[in-house]
Amino acid sequence: MQRSPLALPFPDLPAIAGVRIGTASVPYKPWTRDCVTLVELAADTAVAGVTTRSQCPSPEVELCRARLPGGRARGLIVNAGNSNAFTGAAGRAAAHAQAARVAEVLGCSADAVFSASTGVIGVPLPVDLALAGVDKAHARLGQADWLAATHAIGTTDTFPKAATTSAIVGGVRVKLVGIVKGSGMIAPDMATMLGFIFSDAVIAPALWQQMLNAAVAGSFNCITVDSDTSTSDTVLAFATGAAGHAELASMDSPGADALAAALADLCRQLAIAVVRDGEGAQKLITVTVTGAVDDGSARRVAMSIANSPLVKTAIAGGDANWGRVVMAVGKAGEPAERDSIAIRFGDTLVASAGAVVPGYDEAPVAAHLAGPEVRIAVDLGLGPGRAQVWTCDLTHGYISINADYRS
Amino acid sequence: MQRSPLALPFPDLPAIAGVRIGTASVPYKPWTRDCVTLVELAADTAVAGVTTRSQCPSPEVELCRARLPGGRARGLIVNAGNSNAFTGAAGRAAAHAQAARVAEVLGCSADAVFSASTGVIGVPLPVDLALAGVDKAHARLGQADWLAATHAIGTTDTFPKAATTSAIVGGVRVKLVGIVKGSGMIAPDMATMLGFIFSDAVIAPALWQQMLNAAVAGSFNCITVDSDTSTSDTVLAFATGAAGHAELASMDSPGADALAAALADLCRQLAIAVVRDGEGAQKLITVTVTGAVDDGSARRVAMSIANSPLVKTAIAGGDANWGRVVMAVGKAGEPAERDSIAIRFGDTLVASAGAVVPGYDEAPVAAHLAGPEVRIAVDLGLGPGRAQVWTCDLTHGYISINADYRS
Repeated sequence: MQRSPLALPFPDLPAIAGVRIGTASVPYKPWTRDCVTLVELAADTAVAGVTTRSQCPSPEVELCRARLPGGRARGLIVNAGNSNAFTGAAGRAAAHAQAARVAEVLGCSADAVFSASTGVIGVPLPVDLALAGVDKAHARLGQADWLAATHAIGTTDTFPKAATTSAIVGGVRVKLVGIVKGSGMIAPDMATMLGFIFSDAVIAPALWQQMLNAAVAGSFNCITVDSDTSTSDTVLAFATGAAGHAELASMDSPGADALAAALADLCRQLAIAVVRDGEGAQKLITVTVTGAVDDGSARRVAMSIANSPLVKTAIAGGDANWGRVVMAVGKAGEPAERDSIAIRFGDTLVASAGAVVPGYDEAPVAAHLAGPEVRIAVDLGLGPGRAQVWTCDLTHGYISINADYRS
Repeated sequence: MQRSPLALPFPDLPAIAGVRIGTASVPYKPWTRDCVTLVELAADTAVAGVTTRSQCPSPEVELCRARLPGGRARGLIVNAGNSNAFTGAAGRAAAHAQAARVAEVLGCSADAVFSASTGVIGVPLPVDLALAGVDKAHARLGQADWLAATHAIGTTDTFPKAATTSAIVGGVRVKLVGIVKGSGMIAPDMATMLGFIFSDAVIAPALWQQMLNAAVAGSFNCITVDSDTSTSDTVLAFATGAAGHAELASMDSPGADALAAALADLCRQLAIAVVRDGEGAQKLITVTVTGAVDDGSARRVAMSIANSPLVKTAIAGGDANWGRVVMAVGKAGEPAERDSIAIRFGDTLVASAGAVVPGYDEAPVAAHLAGPEVRIAVDLGLGPGRAQVWTCDLTHGYISINADYRS
């Protein structure tokens, strides 16, 4: 699979005290690369998480959902090559057996182990391989760096995606590192987005969850590649407490604002990296909607634009087809007045007051659309609501990846 | 543009007493074919209509919406090649001027004229051409047959789409004919679905509207090519009253049931014909959902499957990828229990009880998927709700039509 033309270089990432990683190879797929990732976390690590809204989630998602209220984590196990989704009782048993083995090798309670799997749907996770993977990865704990882990959680991603940031909390620089795998598919059935965030922050689990919810709302929940939702989407955030500052217990604690802002920034970087590796993506599209009646309405209009196949194919073709943007606004079902809508491509006002602008010159728009990053801005002229979402164009590459194949 | 492999032959259609058609060529586009269609309707023709739910409709749609409550029609004018959508005051003035000219040449009240336009968005309908088109088509009234009219309302349709049926009402055979243009696009911006239905039934407008609403709910509102909604979608139904039976005034009138059933059947035929001419379509997909908590929930799950790019590309590739169907059920946001879902491709049960069926044999499924008509059935196992919707596969043809082009 060709590296995405929108790929970013792998960043320099600091170590996070309290995090040790081991990876291993077990043949869920005929791969030679590592596909099992074990993370050991310091005692009392706070955990927060957000999982897919799918009504048909994988047993790993259900396991995370059940354990997140406990707020504490000691281990994380990630399988790549098999999502274990829609595998009935056999799949559930395999997920629980693997997590139990992690608890055993790390010497922690079963409730402190979290897991995620990504890959083909409908094939139960082979329990013997899953257990062997834990043992092999455990034997190599501390030997894998961030890049190795990012590769090991990936499926058909065309480049490894990670980000880092920091915040000053109580006079201490708190570090955050995130790794993510996305939607670069060669074989079908591998569409899951998994994100794992590690920090040395000292923070109460409830507050960490609150910060993660807010960060995800403005990042992972504002991206779309093809409007489809995986059975396995999971974002987990771990705070080991190694930074040593006074524990953050509420948003009123000094430094909480800074940490929340850093977490939001990290999530946004990771989410946009996923879109940059969208299937067949040639262009990153940022859709900004302002002037909606409220933020929720703005988000729904923005997602209607970002999910429209006709808008996405127009951008793929470098076509300044603002009529399709009007169409996508109109179909969103949100309050909109045709004659008060303004549309911009890049910095150029294209349409306003219900019609194309007088003397519209397409040249600067065509130049903007020829680049790898396209901005579409719509002002509805109704109220204070605003939202920003990210997507990619819809190309022959998407069809080739998803249709020109038989399982 | 190549004729759709799913094209149907043009049916034999009866004349409808009280309907006279003329077509004309005016160069909205550099076409030599006719692109203006004028229909003269008998005095007291009942009219019913359903228009797009877009918040950004064309002025023609607004004109129809304003006049439908009157319930009576004498004229219809259809322009192909220019949708007149998002054209501000100039477009509104052109639409009203053209309708006024129709009223003038037919000698009827302005409120009895209906109109529809399809084609490029954002270019005001040239009023001089629009008026000349009315005059030229009027001079040829009665010379155009159904096939000529079907061609003249089309844009980039790859085959002409029409259907007929009949019902016995009060001992008289009432005839119905429908013509439709759909979503076969070469140039972008031409995605509108227009449908026009003509009958000699004698019926009160309010009842005719009630029958049309029910028929559209199970037909035109149950199809999707790419989830996008035109600014101009319009279905108008005209009943000239020439059949001479006693006027139908309510669903209790003898024969009303038969007419409603015939209208529903006609709409279903026309709607499926639109899908057969979907952009790039190689396969017609029928999605049936049963066992939902209610019919509305079933329809939303069915549309989630029918709109999923991953499902549609899998079908394009002949891939029995039932995991993507699970995904689409899960993302619909409707009540669903993973472990009570059953999935069939064609006549083969593929998955049930939350997992693939024991001993699943893919051979009959692959054979079914190799054909031009694919059936996907999902039983949610929860309640009595059911729905059926139609879509087509997502192919390289769709991308070529919509992206490999610059306006």
